[in-house]
Amino acid sequence: MTFEKVAVVGLGLIGGSLAAALHESREVWEVFGVERDPESLRFALRKGIIDKGSSEIGPDISGSKIVVIATYVDTIAQVAKEVSRFVLPGTAVCDVGSVKAPVVREMEKGSWRIRFVGAHPIAGKETSGVRESDPGLFSGKKCIVTPVESTSPEALSMVKTLFSLAGGEVVEMDPESHDEVFSLVSHLPHAVAYSLVNAVASGGRDRNLFDFSGGGLADLTRIADSSPEMWAGIFIENRDALLRAIRGFAGELGKIEKAVVAGNVEDLVALLREARDSKRNLGE
Amino acid sequence: MTFEKVAVVGLGLIGGSLAAALHESREVWEVFGVERDPESLRFALRKGIIDKGSSEIGPDISGSKIVVIATYVDTIAQVAKEVSRFVLPGTAVCDVGSVKAPVVREMEKGSWRIRFVGAHPIAGKETSGVRESDPGLFSGKKCIVTPVESTSPEALSMVKTLFSLAGGEVVEMDPESHDEVFSLVSHLPHAVAYSLVNAVASGGRDRNLFDFSGGGLADLTRIADSSPEMWAGIFIENRDALLRAIRGFAGELGKIEKAVVAGNVEDLVALLREARDSKRNLGE
Repeated sequence: MTFEKVAVVGLGLIGGSLAAALHESREVWEVFGVERDPESLRFALRKGIIDKGSSEIGPDISGSKIVVIATYVDTIAQVAKEVSRFVLPGTAVCDVGSVKAPVVREMEKGSWRIRFVGAHPIAGKETSGVRESDPGLFSGKKCIVTPVESTSPEALSMVKTLFSLAGGEVVEMDPESHDEVFSLVSHLPHAVAYSLVNAVASGGRDRNLFDFSGGGLADLTRIADSSPEMWAGIFIENRDALLRAIRGFAGELGKIEKAVVAGNVEDLVALLREARDSKRNLGE
Repeated sequence: MTFEKVAVVGLGLIGGSLAAALHESREVWEVFGVERDPESLRFALRKGIIDKGSSEIGPDISGSKIVVIATYVDTIAQVAKEVSRFVLPGTAVCDVGSVKAPVVREMEKGSWRIRFVGAHPIAGKETSGVRESDPGLFSGKKCIVTPVESTSPEALSMVKTLFSLAGGEVVEMDPESHDEVFSLVSHLPHAVAYSLVNAVASGGRDRNLFDFSGGGLADLTRIADSSPEMWAGIFIENRDALLRAIRGFAGELGKIEKAVVAGNVEDLVALLREARDSKRNLGE
């Protein structure tokens, strides 16, 4: 499958990396980028991450075989609506957001002129912005697509091909399962990391407690360097699943707290051993 | 300063690594190891981690200029009492435990025949046991000593020299400050990591959720592979400070939860930005 033209809306870390990967592929002839920030757009053009670009969604995205929306999760439906005004009816559109059910279900309801496919490549890092983009970012990484009953098989097939061209391993999930899984493996850990930094910073007052930490604290707080705006959007989009995850986690921490209060070594060892064994079984 | 003989009681990761480092130093003539587990003791002798060894504390530790107690924190006072029966009066004894006030204050009370110095080299990893020991483990790492009013200056000086010989950078703190700092930078992160694994494992039921995680979850749960018995002891020894740290952290997580419940993007961004900025300022 070849793509004469692919448009990427939003040249951040993920959009920029996907554009760069597609630009390197022989199966994609033209990568068109849309990016509001003039400096990021110039950077993408200068570095050859995109062939052409524009600062806003307009008639020059027409002719795209597929449009990738790589903006924050809370803006995707709005951007998709905007895209639909300028592309041929039936054009495949996908997103790359970390929350799937709200956007997929909203796109299902509207009588859009586009064929939408929810997607989420599992390839972030704590840095952000087009300057950090890397054509190899998706190489060997799971790229989840979340088709529903109304999803066009042709559009789905195009989106899967696109992520394969970028080096990803495509996996299908339903949007609700996706959101539950990622509330636990990604959104909760981010909430925990941010909270841990705030707890250490306020507990330490003026002292620089990080001076005294071994590698553990650095590891646990690395992802707290991620974009606050992006993650606030993800947390609120995936609100119900995230709240379940936070409460489940708080319950587990409460069990440890209770055993410490009681000075109950046996219970405490049992809780820590359960975690240690799960960690080992889960093979990380 | 040379040491004709140093005894290390407990050949786990820290005890074994310290014995190995001292064994490589020209300033230490004999390293004597005490280790209950016969296989670990044989391993330490065979690999030249120690010169001589025994399965229990007895008369053959006499003649030691300094005795290092490297057993779990909840056993240190008991082991020190045992050591005091076999060494010359006034022999310097230190520990390497992660909690300092309880043991330092208990040693202060008793009319021991030894001169005790609390110590804590900040050099752990999630693995454990003498087979993991590494003479370079302390190289460039902070080794905290916690003298109090009653601490013998000569014993303190010997203990500082010992950790310097092992490659450490010696730092003095009072025991209570130490325990407060480490409740935040080490004990809390461990409690969080163990709880996170338990939350993900029980939230995921039969699915292997770790398959879907990016690097974030792996980083946050790496230290959940640490020894449950050792950490249960540390949590309970440092109970009051740890409970304050857990409650402070739960309060921070509660703020994020509250903003998510309310769908308040501004508050949420402010909380995450505060964490992101602290993380950056704290220079990790």
